[in-house]
Amino acid sequence: MSSRISIENAQWEAAAHPPPYIHKVGKPPKKNFVEEFTATMRETLFPDDPLRQFKDQPWSRKLFLGIQTVFPILHWGRHYSLGMFKGDLIAGLTIASLCIPQDIGYAKLAGLDPQYGLYSSFVPPLIYAFMGSSRDIAIGPVAVVSLLLATLLENEIDSKKNPHDYRRLAFTATFFAGIIQFALGFFRLGFLIDFLSHAAIVGFMAGAAVTIALQQLKSLLGVKNFTKNTDIVSVLRSWNVQTILIGISFLAFLLLAKFIGKKNKKLFWIPAIAPLISIIVSTFFVYITRADKKGVGIVRHINQGVNPSSVNEIFFAGSYLSKGFRIGLVAGMVALTEAVAIGRTFAAMGDYSIDGNKEMIALGTMNIIGSMTSCYIATGSFSRSAVNFMAGCNTAVSNIVMSGVVLLTLELITPLFKYTPNAILASIVISAVAGLFDFQAALLIWKIDKFDFIACIGAFFGVVFISVEIGLLIAVSISFAKILLQVTRPRTAVLGRLPRSTVYRNISHYPEAAKVPGVLIVRVDSAIYFSNSNYIKERILRWLADEEEHLKGSHQPGIQFLIVEMSPVTDIDTSGIQALEELHRSLEKREVQLVLANPGPVVIDKLHASKLADLLGEEHIFLTVADAVTICAPKNEEA
Amino acid sequence: MSSRISIENAQWEAAAHPPPYIHKVGKPPKKNFVEEFTATMRETLFPDDPLRQFKDQPWSRKLFLGIQTVFPILHWGRHYSLGMFKGDLIAGLTIASLCIPQDIGYAKLAGLDPQYGLYSSFVPPLIYAFMGSSRDIAIGPVAVVSLLLATLLENEIDSKKNPHDYRRLAFTATFFAGIIQFALGFFRLGFLIDFLSHAAIVGFMAGAAVTIALQQLKSLLGVKNFTKNTDIVSVLRSWNVQTILIGISFLAFLLLAKFIGKKNKKLFWIPAIAPLISIIVSTFFVYITRADKKGVGIVRHINQGVNPSSVNEIFFAGSYLSKGFRIGLVAGMVALTEAVAIGRTFAAMGDYSIDGNKEMIALGTMNIIGSMTSCYIATGSFSRSAVNFMAGCNTAVSNIVMSGVVLLTLELITPLFKYTPNAILASIVISAVAGLFDFQAALLIWKIDKFDFIACIGAFFGVVFISVEIGLLIAVSISFAKILLQVTRPRTAVLGRLPRSTVYRNISHYPEAAKVPGVLIVRVDSAIYFSNSNYIKERILRWLADEEEHLKGSHQPGIQFLIVEMSPVTDIDTSGIQALEELHRSLEKREVQLVLANPGPVVIDKLHASKLADLLGEEHIFLTVADAVTICAPKNEEA
Repeated sequence: MSSRISIENAQWEAAAHPPPYIHKVGKPPKKNFVEEFTATMRETLFPDDPLRQFKDQPWSRKLFLGIQTVFPILHWGRHYSLGMFKGDLIAGLTIASLCIPQDIGYAKLAGLDPQYGLYSSFVPPLIYAFMGSSRDIAIGPVAVVSLLLATLLENEIDSKKNPHDYRRLAFTATFFAGIIQFALGFFRLGFLIDFLSHAAIVGFMAGAAVTIALQQLKSLLGVKNFTKNTDIVSVLRSWNVQTILIGISFLAFLLLAKFIGKKNKKLFWIPAIAPLISIIVSTFFVYITRADKKGVGIVRHINQGVNPSSVNEIFFAGSYLSKGFRIGLVAGMVALTEAVAIGRTFAAMGDYSIDGNKEMIALGTMNIIGSMTSCYIATGSFSRSAVNFMAGCNTAVSNIVMSGVVLLTLELITPLFKYTPNAILASIVISAVAGLFDFQAALLIWKIDKFDFIACIGAFFGVVFISVEIGLLIAVSISFAKILLQVTRPRTAVLGRLPRSTVYRNISHYPEAAKVPGVLIVRVDSAIYFSNSNYIKERILRWLADEEEHLKGSHQPGIQFLIVEMSPVTDIDTSGIQALEELHRSLEKREVQLVLANPGPVVIDKLHASKLADLLGEEHIFLTVADAVTICAPKNEEA
Repeated sequence: MSSRISIENAQWEAAAHPPPYIHKVGKPPKKNFVEEFTATMRETLFPDDPLRQFKDQPWSRKLFLGIQTVFPILHWGRHYSLGMFKGDLIAGLTIASLCIPQDIGYAKLAGLDPQYGLYSSFVPPLIYAFMGSSRDIAIGPVAVVSLLLATLLENEIDSKKNPHDYRRLAFTATFFAGIIQFALGFFRLGFLIDFLSHAAIVGFMAGAAVTIALQQLKSLLGVKNFTKNTDIVSVLRSWNVQTILIGISFLAFLLLAKFIGKKNKKLFWIPAIAPLISIIVSTFFVYITRADKKGVGIVRHINQGVNPSSVNEIFFAGSYLSKGFRIGLVAGMVALTEAVAIGRTFAAMGDYSIDGNKEMIALGTMNIIGSMTSCYIATGSFSRSAVNFMAGCNTAVSNIVMSGVVLLTLELITPLFKYTPNAILASIVISAVAGLFDFQAALLIWKIDKFDFIACIGAFFGVVFISVEIGLLIAVSISFAKILLQVTRPRTAVLGRLPRSTVYRNISHYPEAAKVPGVLIVRVDSAIYFSNSNYIKERILRWLADEEEHLKGSHQPGIQFLIVEMSPVTDIDTSGIQALEELHRSLEKREVQLVLANPGPVVIDKLHASKLADLLGEEHIFLTVADAVTICAPKNEEA
């Protein structure tokens, strides 16, 4: 074959001149199937190498380390000191004062009686303190999950008409959320939550915040039922002036407190205790003035005492079983995403590391036990975790302190909440969710990645204009679409040589890079898999067609060598090998030789396994683009 | 900060020595959002640049080219000659002789009366000939789609009890299959079929072949109903000896013909006409001996005349509408995958190119019109296309010839099929699907990619032991799992310098590559996206921990610089930027400096947009690893 001879000539010619040192492309050490499979599984499921500490330990020590892995408190508890407790005590009291008002508000948001919010801030944080590995996270009910849960539950059961079944379904969903969280962690499938992109979460959260705020406006304005008459008198009559006054003035107070806390980080405790102060002042005010008789909505009743058992409330059979499972799956995954994101953020700030899968086991256990003790889905709250961090917490003991304060509240002072106006709870929820609307993050996303921004804005509008579930669905779909786009349409680039070097770079990035006459160098920027093999083959041929068209007018030599820079091609599968073979045959018909530069170990292995290496000829495979050019266009190299 | 000063010192020091020429990392030319978005959309939806030929043409020419794009026959028809027709005539007659017996068998496989198979080989090939761009494909009903359609239809309607509604649902499914194929092509979403991996298809096809063969054994053995008694006498009594004799002997004849055709490519026409010969001989034999009276099952009745209209048979309302849509979606996608795979294979062999999306429009149109003329889903048949190719077809005219022969058959000789024994049809189907069991391909897959092999074997066992749909589901799921694995767990590698060069390569691939003291060089082999950003960050930190542990005992200097080789990192999103930032902060606490080598244009852009470039310091970003090492470890470079 004429083309084969020409490269041998070239090699001979190169050898005649003093040759530059050309490295051979090595064949990697052979791995057998079992080794390869084990390595892949380990990298997929145990990327953090969690068993490292168990290595070379005696049996009894391994057992102890195992128990300690499940209950990290046994590890840090041994070094716990009074000094650390001081920080945890202050942080615990601060987050307790923040969580009690929020809990009551969130329970109402979830369509449950107020005490269920407090219950969910008592049991789950206690369990997390023993099993969790984040130092800074504050556990309890959160706004977005409460809203999502209410939306999903209301689709099945009307909370007004059948509050008992509604509550039972809530516990069922919580139970399954826990099971799913536990299972994901146990089977080390935690990476699945990475498929919800950061951008989509930002949009989803902002959308949920707007939805919650609009919903709460109803309580804030004291509207019993939105009137359907549109004339202004009817609308105004449906409002209650006292309620509006109370709601608006306390909302202003809360937002002011938030603003102060933001301006001066040292005053973080002002927004943290403002909600409790609002509750105390407004409750006292209503009690004195008996404003509730003038139409101001109040809490009216809240159960006293600790969590009753709810084991018998969970639907373990019937049609609600599968519904509970489905709701638990969705709400549990969202709760998990939030908790893991918080855990990672604070771990990065404190430079410690947390094992996502272990966290999931802890969160799962806490929700399973929670569902049996009248709690609904609890997770990490971003706002309370931030306060916890700033108040100087050292360990999960701050969660225990908070839990203790909630216990005292349940036992002693719940009756006092009777006169708390609903409008205050609404303003507390509104001021809490305001933080979820992260405009700065959205702006940064816009600047960095436009596609991410579409995901963000799509999720936002989905939640606001359609529903929470649709918004979530949009967020997940766009995240997936991005992944699929990434794997079907990888980038390719034509390379040229940078002046005074042997470095080859993308000519659209470095306009000074010069093409080598007679040679087209194309870099493929992705593993070659079935999802993109055909595209890559056709794209390379299109680069060649473009180049040949471009050369047609000029007097330069036609393309004789097509060098494919394979550095970024980390893997190739059967379809990819087939595509390369087809590329080789197409090029052969055009009298262009296919040359590969720097295929990685996996690719080299497969080139040999498939005999494609023999078909191409080993002399067509080089370690670097520079080596390939030296052989293919030796005259040019010297010029 | 001390670390910042040290690199400046190093630069100063490097400047004091005669410095090697260090390239700056360029900022790429700025693109605005609209340009960027348009480029992405064009690359995703129009990767083949189909509008190239329209460029710089007058308006009237554009219109003509547009019509020609939809009907490629206007293009190749103008250069059509008598010489070409000779090839097409022979090929058309050959595939007609092969398709007529197969059509009758496949129609029975699909649970329809025999004439519907012939109908489907008359109208669709005609339409394809005008609109399709493959020269070699032979259109008609195929085994796998027939089986899949029957399975899906039987789930809804029993073909024995209610054959009329069953047939109506078949037309409805065909209609929607056509609509979906057309829509995919029209909206240029054809790349969606690339998500079914080659390996999964090989397994699925083999599984379908085994299932079909087992099913046909029933007809071949003349079993009316499988007896439930297990004693051998009952079993034998349920068999019909004449049928078995006829079936087995003709199956042997067909397989022998196939074997001859495989051994000598020139005798390809022997297996092509063997089925027709079998039909003629066996029909004549049954007619003479009246073996049908002794229990040999025969076709008995087959409608004469061309396709009747079936527009009124399609369910355009009612519950069967959505069922038909669902069945059409699944069967249509499988049919599409097969046709496009065939089109691409033969295009690669003939070195012409076909536009997948245009093909889908042609296939969709032909099935839509087919559904209105009593045809069920037609697509490209691999075995008949191969015969077409080998018989020397030149254009789609061979499909027109075949269609004409089928028309004559329908008009004139269908009554003669009355005495054709069912056992012959069964042996024809069995010998046809034997080719779908591609053991060689499976072996190659095993050699090249073990994960692909799992997909292949999973799909195979799914089809054989559970059902066609489940097999298909397994095939799709494993294909997707592979994509997800690819994007969540990208490879990373530690690099070392090859002796006597400035080339840095994976030390597990090139054991001779030497690490640079005080420097750890890690290459990340994928774009950094939300789905893997966290993993990549933690994996890099783990490489560092491993390296530091390794160095602990020795007297070598600790790691001061972590160079991340970014060549394969073609893109980065918000989560990726965040991960790099977290990595930078973690390293800062350990007094290790983060250095980036060769970030691509997109990455550089985003590093600047996010201000991360300022945080890292531009002096920490290099064009090549060699440059970075020169600055970070200048002493070592000289050693």
